[in-house]
Amino acid sequence: MPTEYEQTERTRIYRKPGRGSYDRDLVHSILDEALTCHVGFVADGQPYVVPTIHARVGETLFLHGARGNRMLKALVDGTPCCVTVTLVDGLVLARAALHHSLNYRSVMVLGKATEVTDPREKQDALRAVVNHIAPGRADEIRGADETDLKSTRVLSIPIEEASAKVRTGPPVDEEADLDLPSWAGQLPLTSGTGEPIPAPDLTQDLPVPESVRSWARPRNGLRT
Amino acid sequence: MPTEYEQTERTRIYRKPGRGSYDRDLVHSILDEALTCHVGFVADGQPYVVPTIHARVGETLFLHGARGNRMLKALVDGTPCCVTVTLVDGLVLARAALHHSLNYRSVMVLGKATEVTDPREKQDALRAVVNHIAPGRADEIRGADETDLKSTRVLSIPIEEASAKVRTGPPVDEEADLDLPSWAGQLPLTSGTGEPIPAPDLTQDLPVPESVRSWARPRNGLRT
Repeated sequence: MPTEYEQTERTRIYRKPGRGSYDRDLVHSILDEALTCHVGFVADGQPYVVPTIHARVGETLFLHGARGNRMLKALVDGTPCCVTVTLVDGLVLARAALHHSLNYRSVMVLGKATEVTDPREKQDALRAVVNHIAPGRADEIRGADETDLKSTRVLSIPIEEASAKVRTGPPVDEEADLDLPSWAGQLPLTSGTGEPIPAPDLTQDLPVPESVRSWARPRNGLRT
Repeated sequence: MPTEYEQTERTRIYRKPGRGSYDRDLVHSILDEALTCHVGFVADGQPYVVPTIHARVGETLFLHGARGNRMLKALVDGTPCCVTVTLVDGLVLARAALHHSLNYRSVMVLGKATEVTDPREKQDALRAVVNHIAPGRADEIRGADETDLKSTRVLSIPIEEASAKVRTGPPVDEEADLDLPSWAGQLPLTSGTGEPIPAPDLTQDLPVPESVRSWARPRNGLRT
């Protein structure tokens, strides 16, 4: 398999092409680190953008939701969709308003969804979704039973037409602005967790499991 | 002005309607706290979802970018768009895979964009964008000059058809699962900042300004 996705007219990065990438590993790492994605689809001529949880397994993205979910109903008919994830790594504070920016890593996947109907595949996809939220969690809980599988729809989208866009590093000001008395630089943004809050209806004194205690997003060291 | 947006067929919350809200103050607070938004639009039958920085002033959303930006070019023709912002507040860890979720606050605004051409209005919008990223920052830097204004496009979208969706609180498991030996609860997610990194081309020894030193997202106390 080539190390890059094929660039298409639709995934070509026109603005600041230096920020664009079609590297599979980079695309995968951004998809995996992002907790949620934003799914775009069209219904009656109106585009909608809906946040949801995704999971990536190899070159496949999985989405899921209640069987009656409107977005999934629209997607299952094979309407084109766009799945975008964005990680904001920091503020870029320039001397001029124009050059303010964010450091970020984003991925856009264009494609069409197919319903996953095979019970085994569906189980695996739902496990992947739980493990996407909290790695290892799928082994600590009750998996989907027959009733759950019936009430849940799982869609798969092949990752074939995809691109990443990444900005890193300091602000880039105009030469003429360098001596202005304005501080310029980056403010890195960080994410963390608070103390786990046990459910009020816990019936046993159970320790906080590993998946929660050591929870963190997978990182590939590309942050700056 | 009524305290709620009018509910339309397109903004009605079908899934878990209890999570839906049309309250203006809630919608505003989510738009203001979110650093970025995801803009959905259609070009040649393909939906695209593009992350960008927004700013809200009253009942108007402003987007901006380079004059050649493809998304802005598409939007300026009056094509329908959807602006969605999402704040993820925590993980919801249930005993059953099916009941895993996220606590979140999201807003969807449906509408059409208009180009802002009046130089004064454009200036104000760009100041709002800088202050959206870092409150107070617009007063510390060089604002847009004539050249900047020429190379930048600013669009406005009236916030008229909008809805919020919010999940808070503990997991909700099936009665039959309550005694399972799986820990359940919430893991709050937090965000913060690292140490400011001065630009390598700073020519003076300037202190880190207030907008950076005390940087935080506006919060309305709705997190749980």
